[in-house]
Amino acid sequence: MTAGAFFNSRWVDAPSGTIERDPAVLAEGFRAGGVGCGLKSGGTLDLGIIRCDASEVSSAVMLTDNAAAAAPIWVCRDELDRDSIAGVVVNSGNANAATGPDGLDAAREVRATAAEALGLPERSVAIAQTGVIGVPLDTELVTAAIPALAGGITVEGGVPFSEAILTTDDGPKRCSVTCDGVTVSGQAKGAGMIQPGFATMLCFVQTDAVIEEPDAVLRAAVDPSFARISVDGQSSTNDTVVLQASGRSGRPLPEGLLEAVMLQLALMVVADGEGATRICRVDVTGASSPSEAESVARAIGNSPLVKTALLGRDPNWGRIVQAAGAALPGEDLGHIGSESIDAADLADGGQEAGLAIDLERGEHSDHLYFCDLTNEYIAINSEYTT
Amino acid sequence: MTAGAFFNSRWVDAPSGTIERDPAVLAEGFRAGGVGCGLKSGGTLDLGIIRCDASEVSSAVMLTDNAAAAAPIWVCRDELDRDSIAGVVVNSGNANAATGPDGLDAAREVRATAAEALGLPERSVAIAQTGVIGVPLDTELVTAAIPALAGGITVEGGVPFSEAILTTDDGPKRCSVTCDGVTVSGQAKGAGMIQPGFATMLCFVQTDAVIEEPDAVLRAAVDPSFARISVDGQSSTNDTVVLQASGRSGRPLPEGLLEAVMLQLALMVVADGEGATRICRVDVTGASSPSEAESVARAIGNSPLVKTALLGRDPNWGRIVQAAGAALPGEDLGHIGSESIDAADLADGGQEAGLAIDLERGEHSDHLYFCDLTNEYIAINSEYTT
Repeated sequence: MTAGAFFNSRWVDAPSGTIERDPAVLAEGFRAGGVGCGLKSGGTLDLGIIRCDASEVSSAVMLTDNAAAAAPIWVCRDELDRDSIAGVVVNSGNANAATGPDGLDAAREVRATAAEALGLPERSVAIAQTGVIGVPLDTELVTAAIPALAGGITVEGGVPFSEAILTTDDGPKRCSVTCDGVTVSGQAKGAGMIQPGFATMLCFVQTDAVIEEPDAVLRAAVDPSFARISVDGQSSTNDTVVLQASGRSGRPLPEGLLEAVMLQLALMVVADGEGATRICRVDVTGASSPSEAESVARAIGNSPLVKTALLGRDPNWGRIVQAAGAALPGEDLGHIGSESIDAADLADGGQEAGLAIDLERGEHSDHLYFCDLTNEYIAINSEYTT
Repeated sequence: MTAGAFFNSRWVDAPSGTIERDPAVLAEGFRAGGVGCGLKSGGTLDLGIIRCDASEVSSAVMLTDNAAAAAPIWVCRDELDRDSIAGVVVNSGNANAATGPDGLDAAREVRATAAEALGLPERSVAIAQTGVIGVPLDTELVTAAIPALAGGITVEGGVPFSEAILTTDDGPKRCSVTCDGVTVSGQAKGAGMIQPGFATMLCFVQTDAVIEEPDAVLRAAVDPSFARISVDGQSSTNDTVVLQASGRSGRPLPEGLLEAVMLQLALMVVADGEGATRICRVDVTGASSPSEAESVARAIGNSPLVKTALLGRDPNWGRIVQAAGAALPGEDLGHIGSESIDAADLADGGQEAGLAIDLERGEHSDHLYFCDLTNEYIAINSEYTT
């Protein structure tokens, strides 16, 4: 138990009575593990597996809508029983994206090998892959490592699994929390190429709660979390979020628990955005429609001028007006002035800065979490090669 | 005459026989000048005026569609005879944007003062302003300097005028070129906050050609030039392009001359993008519609991952696929692979790199010119304060 280590954002409200546990310990009914199969050098962990041992698992998955979606996305879209995902196999070090028919075959082969090793039907195993785009996957390396990995998964496998899924992340994003007799464990990765259409990056959540409508539950938790973050406005070819429920606790999800876990994981992804030093929540109010509120929030959060102002601690509200105005071409925001904007936190706030703009056009609102744009982002991305 | 000094891009085709002249010399029928009025410190030029002395001037103007458009934009939109602009007054050092009703009054007062000093009706004088957003304009400084400036404009005023309109630009962008007895002179400024809805930044072009339909002529020249560049995907509150024709040559515009001038000026704006070290033209072919081609071109040119690959000389075609796919959510670009993309120039090209992607979905195409994203962009924008 490591109280306070996981929920550390002022923007996250965990249900009262929530206890943080060792993140290695998965929700009841789950086992996991991670190994280095050789996609990354030096034995770095790069292959992970999760298995749900419950006879009836309830699950949901959300996938990127990028038109250049990777091979594993196509397998999960078309060849997966999305409501009963018992197994998950993930590799880092290669995204298997833009790899054509051979890539699709490779994803199927990895998934089939994992299914066999786990004693599960192929259609109940999800696959996710992350890393460099456009390079053929060395399928042999992956499939050779799967049997031993699958044979060695444990109920305390959350730590190696969370490390096996990382790419340019500074560190793992993981938790195991308990409330009202229900445990939720989760592991995520992110860093760059992050702006969800709905979600972003990879995130896996396990719970022993009983979940009747996993799709609706997952969507409701993703909408205010992974769907509301941006590192660089780029949506990945491989974004995947998987929720699995074993039902072993015999109880329903405590209200707000899954939302809190996913928001904290999402904020960890933003905070660990490539080169990020600060994160910011922008609140847009007074919009004339929900889509207007969202587009203004995204325009502000993805503006390189706002992101560099966040870095430079400059309460430059003119750039915020410019970004808002650019999101509404042909409209009139001429009434917006300094009194419509609270940008003080840009200068004075700490690691988590708040920013607000009132469009004074209606009753709708939205928000987005984003990070600053730094020299480190440029160094990482101008030196990271194909 | 400084042959070859202006037209220096491989992407610009000037009509044969075009001669480059001293950029100070305006097209016949025009006078201009620039002074330092005190908006910038140390006597730096920050106020410019152009006057057409022809009895019948033909003109057109294009303005930003940013919803938070600046006060001078509103004056030009609503209170200007756009087809007969004889005078232009421009200041740098203050954008007069997000300044509310007082800002609108300030813009009107500056414009009225210029009109009086030039002996022109107010409605035939355009106003443009650029610089910091959200700071009240010191109108007094500007109006006090106008009479002497207006009294001192000359036919060789292109140089001081082109310098008076700059902000974070590294240097002026200006020309005076002659072909088939027609002269076109032009002055532009840019640097950051640059992605045109249609145009970007400030650009002023004077010609002694006879132009019957100035709106159509301007639009046709802006569409492949200022509407096809991006520095940072940000559209300004103040973008303005003004074309004025004195008709003094008695001849029509030589085919391609205005387009060549505006494209070269636009490329100079990209090349002088904040922190830019290289520029790139991305060509998108095989799109299923014109808007699809444009959105893919913009997604690629504005992707921070592609822009850092341009900096890092990394032919990272995976990032190009990712950006293209993100522009077409829910579509299928699964057939796109390395053979669909020519990214060799990213690594091997010089100052002007070419990049091409064939979407293999249809017959439409588009292109965009953009620059790389560098530490210098971040330094400029995290240190430039309100």
